[in-house]
Amino acid sequence: MRSAAEAAPSFLYLPALRTLGERFTLEGEEARYLTRVVRARENERVTASDGSGHVAVLRVERARPELVLVLESAREHPRPPSARLICGAPEGERGDWLVEKLAELGVTDLDPVDTERGRWPAGRDGRWERLAVAALRQSRSAWKMAIHTATGLSEAMAAARERTRWLADPDGAAASRLPMAQDTVVAAVGPSPGFTEPERKALRGSGFEPVRVASYRLRTETAALTVAALWAAARSPAGDVGSGPEA
Amino acid sequence: MRSAAEAAPSFLYLPALRTLGERFTLEGEEARYLTRVVRARENERVTASDGSGHVAVLRVERARPELVLVLESAREHPRPPSARLICGAPEGERGDWLVEKLAELGVTDLDPVDTERGRWPAGRDGRWERLAVAALRQSRSAWKMAIHTATGLSEAMAAARERTRWLADPDGAAASRLPMAQDTVVAAVGPSPGFTEPERKALRGSGFEPVRVASYRLRTETAALTVAALWAAARSPAGDVGSGPEA
Repeated sequence: MRSAAEAAPSFLYLPALRTLGERFTLEGEEARYLTRVVRARENERVTASDGSGHVAVLRVERARPELVLVLESAREHPRPPSARLICGAPEGERGDWLVEKLAELGVTDLDPVDTERGRWPAGRDGRWERLAVAALRQSRSAWKMAIHTATGLSEAMAAARERTRWLADPDGAAASRLPMAQDTVVAAVGPSPGFTEPERKALRGSGFEPVRVASYRLRTETAALTVAALWAAARSPAGDVGSGPEA
Repeated sequence: MRSAAEAAPSFLYLPALRTLGERFTLEGEEARYLTRVVRARENERVTASDGSGHVAVLRVERARPELVLVLESAREHPRPPSARLICGAPEGERGDWLVEKLAELGVTDLDPVDTERGRWPAGRDGRWERLAVAALRQSRSAWKMAIHTATGLSEAMAAARERTRWLADPDGAAASRLPMAQDTVVAAVGPSPGFTEPERKALRGSGFEPVRVASYRLRTETAALTVAALWAAARSPAGDVGSGPEA
């Protein structure tokens, strides 16, 4: 939810932001959003992110007939510590809102994996990208969640370099505490019928620790979301929720 | 996700379970589910919950032409400590999956509240009840989430008896730790344009502590879900995730 106090100025996603210069004409979807939806006026300020750490404050020099923006200031935000979800396919259309929620909660990388018991539907890339962009706008983020092409589990495991590794597992041990704010983290969540035993064994062999994140049996997308919510809380600055005695 | 090891027997929701006796004929939706979807056979065992703490193991004595079930054993599960969400209206159709996810994560009571800046759509009661029942089946719970009729904020605050009180607030302080497993908890989450300042003041006056649950700006339904995920983790038994040093 948004408090009244922070009714915020418009937020644009401009992947080419770094190369646009001090004054530029903007066309396309973001320009339409600014002139037709928000109805931005001359001298109004807007914020823009390239989704890769570059955030700028822009001033509307002219709104019509063309939208001309002037760069007022810019800032680089360091890449946040990696928070990766390796996720099997949920049921039906549940992948769409999973993508939206993971992006909103600050997951940095989503690796959809095709497993023995579940394959992701093809042709969702464009839609997922739009959901990730909408989440970036909503959360006013410097970084956009990267959604990787669906691969097999072994490829996803090989690509994971994160230090803390969870295998979301209703039969796993409860984790003793949340990861620290600066930990790099990865979690593997099975498709709706679950990982097979060989898949679980491979994950455990790669250092993925079976962790139960709730005392309830959760659907794929709920388990993934719960992991992301726990990580988001752990990364909330200063006096973290549940960060434990070391904080 | 569900692991292969616990591919579980069928789970029925029978609100009248306590009164059905030692042997009974079952009709209606749950009977159709058992005979047509699951295709349960004679002597198969199924579990049933009344959503109010009573869980029984039943044996299929006869599947056709009528479904006759025999009570094998029953158990009472104590009511879990209250975990209540007072929630303003999210955008569009997002309320549906909010209901599903809160129920799945073990929230005990959902109080939809109509506020200055957001009202819940009418006529969703039947649909929400079905979603809560589906979540009960999914999580094999003894207790079904209670979804109360939408009221005003002051009525909802007056009804809340829980000890730990959060006001989900992006400008709030981070909570120092998760609630203990046995705490009764309530959180208030604003509608998508946020609570008004007088509403926030009333909540703070009622002991609702402004708590930031993530360092991102979250949509209404994401904030509610994040709170529920944190509570679910705190209630996960033995060596709770993030329960802090007292655990």
